[in-house]
Amino acid sequence: MVDVMGGSSRWDIKVHDHGFVSLVDCMPRMVPEGKTGDFAIVQAARVSYGQGTKQVSEDRGLVRYLMRHRHSTPFEMVEFKFHIAMPIFIARQWIRHRTANVNEYSARYSIMPDRFYRPDVENVRKQSKSNRQGGEGPIDAGTADEFLKLLEGAEANYQKYLELTERGVAREIARAVLPVSVYTEWYWKCDLHNIFHFLSLRMDPHAQIEIQEYARAMYELIKPIVPVASEAFEDYRLNAMHLTGLEIDAIRTGKPLATENKRETAEWEAKKARLGLA
Amino acid sequence: MVDVMGGSSRWDIKVHDHGFVSLVDCMPRMVPEGKTGDFAIVQAARVSYGQGTKQVSEDRGLVRYLMRHRHSTPFEMVEFKFHIAMPIFIARQWIRHRTANVNEYSARYSIMPDRFYRPDVENVRKQSKSNRQGGEGPIDAGTADEFLKLLEGAEANYQKYLELTERGVAREIARAVLPVSVYTEWYWKCDLHNIFHFLSLRMDPHAQIEIQEYARAMYELIKPIVPVASEAFEDYRLNAMHLTGLEIDAIRTGKPLATENKRETAEWEAKKARLGLA
Amino acid sequence: MVDVMGGSSRWDIKVHDHGFVSLVDCMPRMVPEGKTGDFAIVQAARVSYGQGTKQVSEDRGLVRYLMRHRHSTPFEMVEFKFHIAMPIFIARQWIRHRTANVNEYSARYSIMPDRFYRPDVENVRKQSKSNRQGGEGPIDAGTADEFLKLLEGAEANYQKYLELTERGVAREIARAVLPVSVYTEWYWKCDLHNIFHFLSLRMDPHAQIEIQEYARAMYELIKPIVPVASEAFEDYRLNAMHLTGLEIDAIRTGKPLATENKRETAEWEAKKARLGLA
Amino acid sequence: MVDVMGGSSRWDIKVHDHGFVSLVDCMPRMVPEGKTGDFAIVQAARVSYGQGTKQVSEDRGLVRYLMRHRHSTPFEMVEFKFHIAMPIFIARQWIRHRTANVNEYSARYSIMPDRFYRPDVENVRKQSKSNRQGGEGPIDAGTADEFLKLLEGAEANYQKYLELTERGVAREIARAVLPVSVYTEWYWKCDLHNIFHFLSLRMDPHAQIEIQEYARAMYELIKPIVPVASEAFEDYRLNAMHLTGLEIDAIRTGKPLATENKRETAEWEAKKARLGLA
Repeated sequence: MVDVMGGSSRWDIKVHDHGFVSLVDCMPRMVPEGKTGDFAIVQAARVSYGQGTKQVSEDRGLVRYLMRHRHSTPFEMVEFKFHIAMPIFIARQWIRHRTANVNEYSARYSIMPDRFYRPDVENVRKQSKSNRQGGEGPIDAGTADEFLKLLEGAEANYQKYLELTERGVAREIARAVLPVSVYTEWYWKCDLHNIFHFLSLRMDPHAQIEIQEYARAMYELIKPIVPVASEAFEDYRLNAMHLTGLEIDAIRTGKPLATENKRETAEWEAKKARLGLA
Repeated sequence: MVDVMGGSSRWDIKVHDHGFVSLVDCMPRMVPEGKTGDFAIVQAARVSYGQGTKQVSEDRGLVRYLMRHRHSTPFEMVEFKFHIAMPIFIARQWIRHRTANVNEYSARYSIMPDRFYRPDVENVRKQSKSNRQGGEGPIDAGTADEFLKLLEGAEANYQKYLELTERGVAREIARAVLPVSVYTEWYWKCDLHNIFHFLSLRMDPHAQIEIQEYARAMYELIKPIVPVASEAFEDYRLNAMHLTGLEIDAIRTGKPLATENKRETAEWEAKKARLGLA
Repeated sequence: MVDVMGGSSRWDIKVHDHGFVSLVDCMPRMVPEGKTGDFAIVQAARVSYGQGTKQVSEDRGLVRYLMRHRHSTPFEMVEFKFHIAMPIFIARQWIRHRTANVNEYSARYSIMPDRFYRPDVENVRKQSKSNRQGGEGPIDAGTADEFLKLLEGAEANYQKYLELTERGVAREIARAVLPVSVYTEWYWKCDLHNIFHFLSLRMDPHAQIEIQEYARAMYELIKPIVPVASEAFEDYRLNAMHLTGLEIDAIRTGKPLATENKRETAEWEAKKARLGLA
Repeated sequence: MVDVMGGSSRWDIKVHDHGFVSLVDCMPRMVPEGKTGDFAIVQAARVSYGQGTKQVSEDRGLVRYLMRHRHSTPFEMVEFKFHIAMPIFIARQWIRHRTANVNEYSARYSIMPDRFYRPDVENVRKQSKSNRQGGEGPIDAGTADEFLKLLEGAEANYQKYLELTERGVAREIARAVLPVSVYTEWYWKCDLHNIFHFLSLRMDPHAQIEIQEYARAMYELIKPIVPVASEAFEDYRLNAMHLTGLEIDAIRTGKPLATENKRETAEWEAKKARLGLA
């Protein structure tokens, strides 16, 4: 058997100024010679001993079939554990994925390290017109500069936070002065099915850019370990499209979408363009 | 049938300066005349129709038996929904309870309201000596005052945050300047078994005082709806004690606790005192 | 406020010979005059008080938007509780949906009632050629008859099971003789998001016919309570189609699907036919 | 680094006639020389790099502290995967533990193997008088023999089941004739915290004897991999005792338990006897 992490105890990718995603363990860790971590998906799907004689190509076909038909449980048999450092405002989005196991750094127990997220100037984004919850394109340099100064000011509370805790203020209460740009860190362990769900939401262009970068780093780390599942994930989920009942009717009949909803119509136009049906 | 909320659409309790816990719905909502919400626990435990003839006293005995023997599933048949406003540093502790359903206010989508947690001066606590993650007693007035000024300074970023978003900075990025003392709010829906678990951890003296106050408010809201289960919760969980195998041996043999661990010994001394065995 | 169940304590639908799905409670139960249970979805999505002035049509647009964009958390704010009787072989499929709360009849605690599933003769299905895990069409009458006799023989153990428990054999061990066609029952409580997930899998033609009938009964029960969400569920999920990256390329380029996998090609042909692109 | 499974791909323990529990993988699999799988608990609890200098004894103290204080998340960082074969009536108890990942053998997809549970004659138990859901002691040999014959009769349907599926009856419907004593099998993957919860319920004398044997086999398999956590589990959970508020009062005041509930009083007497306080 061979170690899919090649004997390493962690694989690191830096994200932003002070952040990182590090793969610290996975299951399966040891696989038969010539196999990848995809092995465990096939093993569980077969729930039997006698799979030794199957060809690699059959394994690939099985994994792809499972992904295409949304059979989620075999993918749950693969587990990854990460060490991650990210700003609190990102951690708060991340933690909404409830199926993972998490051990977070405790600001009640320990002093928060002096690490704050500060975007590059071109990443101080304008509010999107079309997407109420997103940003798009850099704001003018003057405003960006003002914002970065404001952020710097918020960070400057750190020294005083440190001093006050040294003078005896309880850490759990002192931390209230820190901005949500401060970095926290955690161990985060999750099965592959739920990681793919996380990635499909967080690598999406509608996700906040900062968390997209974490998601991409995570994907880059797991891809060499489960290459077959990852390829299937790209083909059948990441690059896939969902057609609603109304859209199916529109294609079949050649008529306009049967709705007066402008947003829904715009979504349909975008899909048509991608399908070359415009 | 009668409405256990008496026709109200919400029951509110204020917490701290700007916080609140509001009960906005529950299941069961309508119960037979003369019954409380405990009715649903008994109904599920019996999994049968013919419970109409049972006496109230038998219902109480059954609920207490279920609680004493940690039969959790009948308590999962009762559900409560709350609207809660709390500072982000409390929300981050709260969200770790993964079995609840949550809809949180989105700082990507909307401007955060101008509400920040500022403790009373006597609640600016000293770091506990005995408990690395807690506080105990007020810090001297001078230090408290310095801390509150620092907090006020952190809050002062709010006006600039508002101005910059009005000038077009994306909300998702602008919010990075806000301190974790800013209030967020959410709908939080959870079954009674998991609420009791939440309460047993968060009404505990080791929990951060700020979240204890939310937990107590929540308990006050549900208690009139499930009085029998609540009484059992107090008798069998809240006021209960866990004796380790070593502690059982120490009681039985009258010998000291078989450990050299100081902390464990101190825990045992505290239990002995409470049992009157010191 | 009005009771969405119109003052009833249960709504029943019979399934098969001895089975049923009964709605025994829901949240919200009491809604403002003129509203349906969809109200709670909108209420949570808005996470705010001031929604009173919104028009019904806006509510509908919001619910549909949420469904179309797979915003799952507002749908989790609606909860349904059912009392269900079904054969054990169906219960075993059902229980795999892990997000529900369940109280099942205990065959350790009580005697199993004398109720067994026996399909109608035209429902003794042939093994499907195309689908390894399904059946299709009735088998010849002679074989069906043999099967039904075999089933009847398995049921006949019931009298002896009863007698042996009366003579003191522990129920937990005696039940081992009963076939998986015996009916069990449970209370099953689940939020609307996860119910829709259950329905999308179990109303699917690939699900076993017996569980499809339960799923349809369940859907029939909830539909009048959440009509807007149900309509959106049909438009955007039940009648929707998933196009893989390969299929999108095939539509855009007009070329054959870039795969040598026969099954995948057949799936694509079926989709093309439905889209009128064949 | 060393493989905690010593290069094996599975560790097997036979249970009953045809059952088994096999450990097929774990996380961590590779640990630093001189460490056990407990390493991952400590690693997560520290959420930091610099633990290299800590002594083994400190690790043990930390693991024991975490267990004593019910800090569950570090134990969630250890994961075990098992291959298990068990009768359906046991599988149905097992599956109620919802936090695990499961891939079960499909009786829709494949023919069930010819394996049935048949207890030894001394394990055909009498219904317990004191415990409505348990058995105690063997029933008389004559009745046991009748029961075993009945069971044998139920198994005899297997040949006909096989024949009918060969003649084309769909497997999903044909299996309805099989008794719940038939063996199924699955891959079952679960974190250590939830495994300990499973074990505390299923190694308990109130659990059905058949599942107790599986639980003990599982414990035997994991113990050498996480010896420190296992010792803490025994000291602080398995051999622990829960004292209710009423029982604490009874010890402190020396008065009888403040209840008229006979069952509760009997429970208290049993605890007193164990504590040597009778």
